[in-house]
Amino acid sequence: MFTGLSAFPLTPLHDDHLDEPAFVRIIERLASAGVDSIGTLGSTGSYAYLDRTERARTVTLAVQHAAGVPVIAGIGALRQAHVLRYADDAQQAGASGLLLAPVSYQPLHPDEVYHLFEQVTARIAVPLVVYDNPRTTGFTFTDDLYAAVAKLPHVTSIKVPPLPVTAPIARDRVTAIRALLPAHVGIGVSGDPVAAVALHAGCDAWYSVIGGTLPTAALAITRAPDPAAAKAASDRLRPLWELFAAHGSLRVVAAIAEHLTLTGPDSLPRPIRGLDTTARRAVIHALTEAGLDH
Amino acid sequence: MFTGLSAFPLTPLHDDHLDEPAFVRIIERLASAGVDSIGTLGSTGSYAYLDRTERARTVTLAVQHAAGVPVIAGIGALRQAHVLRYADDAQQAGASGLLLAPVSYQPLHPDEVYHLFEQVTARIAVPLVVYDNPRTTGFTFTDDLYAAVAKLPHVTSIKVPPLPVTAPIARDRVTAIRALLPAHVGIGVSGDPVAAVALHAGCDAWYSVIGGTLPTAALAITRAPDPAAAKAASDRLRPLWELFAAHGSLRVVAAIAEHLTLTGPDSLPRPIRGLDTTARRAVIHALTEAGLDH
Repeated sequence: MFTGLSAFPLTPLHDDHLDEPAFVRIIERLASAGVDSIGTLGSTGSYAYLDRTERARTVTLAVQHAAGVPVIAGIGALRQAHVLRYADDAQQAGASGLLLAPVSYQPLHPDEVYHLFEQVTARIAVPLVVYDNPRTTGFTFTDDLYAAVAKLPHVTSIKVPPLPVTAPIARDRVTAIRALLPAHVGIGVSGDPVAAVALHAGCDAWYSVIGGTLPTAALAITRAPDPAAAKAASDRLRPLWELFAAHGSLRVVAAIAEHLTLTGPDSLPRPIRGLDTTARRAVIHALTEAGLDH
Repeated sequence: MFTGLSAFPLTPLHDDHLDEPAFVRIIERLASAGVDSIGTLGSTGSYAYLDRTERARTVTLAVQHAAGVPVIAGIGALRQAHVLRYADDAQQAGASGLLLAPVSYQPLHPDEVYHLFEQVTARIAVPLVVYDNPRTTGFTFTDDLYAAVAKLPHVTSIKVPPLPVTAPIARDRVTAIRALLPAHVGIGVSGDPVAAVALHAGCDAWYSVIGGTLPTAALAITRAPDPAAAKAASDRLRPLWELFAAHGSLRVVAAIAEHLTLTGPDSLPRPIRGLDTTARRAVIHALTEAGLDH
């Protein structure tokens, strides 16, 4: 479950409510593409914006329609009591694994984050991915904290921020992180543009934004036999990576999902808005050029 | 309501539930000290961590026990639909004003924040404070955005981040902000250590952390007749400002409130933890030296 391509689907809304048919379409698309796991309620799945009922329903639908592909569920929240509740709900809904980022409003200290993971891992029965995403959470893990949380029960993978794009430097960083972790804890990379490099630099998994909407293109990168083939498969998507950098990956994949009629328009949780017409045209152009506009 | 000392109380928890008697004690303390307004559910009031029921109850209790002092209520949330709901609830509970920060998980664009304020101000019936707190929200207002939101109906005050500590530079910045705003929109400062300077640099209000727990000491700064007297009143609290910088103001005022037996121990929402023994001793020492340990 924590190797290969973990595809992170959108959680589309319609008129500020969960768009269940659209979500089911996306999950079925991932299952039939043969991704290695489905990461529901990740950042791409807008977990931070959803309430308890919406989160539980999302995980239930994902498990029902994943055709046996393991479902990982994000459980992050500002308040520890809510995190524990979401952990219970997600397991109840059939999640095979959980994903936890230390979301902050007041800046958190490393020991507060450690205690959060300690409390959560004392309570759960399934594997946990430790999710380090400084850009959204406002919290940056130290290497010492990686080492400490990786020793907690149920911790099975660390989802690390984008690695350096230069292969030898990426490899050095993966080696350094691996030296901090028990042997059974893997490393997964975020940051789609560096996935091709990261997977060949020793990462076990790719926690993928684009894989949640364009699973076949992401599998081509993940299962490429060598670094050159992975790079070629990734370079095909370079115009999308550039749009990710300009507009945020979430807004771009929402535009892709809409163009592919997987979702309706305006599927993101307000105040987040979709792309403007110019950016949307650039997304469609990039898709067409890559032969992915269907 | 948006001039002078706006005191921001803690929202203390006990065993992860709202500690109503402690909250009422704090509100009554502020009312009897004669603060100009009470800013419930600010960052110091942990709004971001509280659910809908807790928020509504907090505002209701504040209004009931404020003895006529106007109550401002924070309504921030990641999702616009939740913000609108909290705005309704707070007005229903009797809030005289609202306070809105554009909280983010996915980084927001200025136009998304503008639209959020547009939606909210189209719906409310009471004055609104625009709350700019980049450190907690992850969003930084541009001057253009200040100018744009200040034109929206109901906007009455901008709560700006800490100003420069050097008086002439602070004055230049206040003058520059004021030039962006319609005449009826005031400027309030955050950042307790610079309040003495900021009030004499032309700010209309001080949105004060320390004022929520030590209102008399904050009033001494606010109502000082001249800059030198304000500075002297502020310098008396310098050891507290240093502790704010080291540990975050929230953890420090929670320790003060506990020491003054306004709250019990462990009153902050986990994963946030109280100060350790050493830091707590330093807080008590600073209080004692300033004659504020009662």
